[in-house]
Amino acid sequence: MGMQSLGRHLLGELHGCDRELLNRPEHVREAMLAAVARSGATPIQDFVHMFSPHGVTGIIVIAESHFAIHTWPEYGFAAVDLFTCGDTVDPWRAFEHVASALRAETHSVVEIRRGLLPSRDGQRLPHKPGA
Amino acid sequence: MGMQSLGRHLLGELHGCDRELLNRPEHVREAMLAAVARSGATPIQDFVHMFSPHGVTGIIVIAESHFAIHTWPEYGFAAVDLFTCGDTVDPWRAFEHVASALRAETHSVVEIRRGLLPSRDGQRLPHKPGA
Repeated sequence: MGMQSLGRHLLGELHGCDRELLNRPEHVREAMLAAVARSGATPIQDFVHMFSPHGVTGIIVIAESHFAIHTWPEYGFAAVDLFTCGDTVDPWRAFEHVASALRAETHSVVEIRRGLLPSRDGQRLPHKPGA
Repeated sequence: MGMQSLGRHLLGELHGCDRELLNRPEHVREAMLAAVARSGATPIQDFVHMFSPHGVTGIIVIAESHFAIHTWPEYGFAAVDLFTCGDTVDPWRAFEHVASALRAETHSVVEIRRGLLPSRDGQRLPHKPGA
């Protein structure tokens, strides 16, 4: 018996971003959709919300879990979540794209394994929920 | 100067859940919406997706960030993310509700502070993006 995880979850913190870009819902949406494409994930639905007077929330539901972003233009900050399952999707490529698209000066990111389950050696867990 | 965080993010892992409930989109949606209400958050939009042959993804966009769930009925497992900002919302009350609604036998949960920023003593960060 070994351990395998169902998913990988990157929690990214972007500092020193372009404040104007952080406040443009369409830019944030396009950055996230491009990140989905870079990662190899399959988009199912996307949603973006503009707060008053500033701040954007963007969510992309993907077949392999979800991507989410919340921006605070007043601090030049964005919190990014990239949760994927399966071996065919690379959330790190998505993270690089988002950090670049928002012109982050500095960032930190941690990867957390989600859904740790015991598994027999050689038995692979499915790539996506229900796959 | 001290440090304050913009948000709190609970990453919950629910094991030993009721497999039939995990595979009912409407039950998952209702559990998440009730969790939003328990936490004191304000729902903006919700989305649920049923995978074939099984597995559910549920996302609730809230004014204070987002709640997300992905279920793997075949393992009795669900991954829950409860990301909130502000002092008026309690993501732990939401977590307790979801764990109960899915009949989780065991769970683990970690709380991560998102958006750590230096702040002057006595100066509070805003409750929500743009607030």
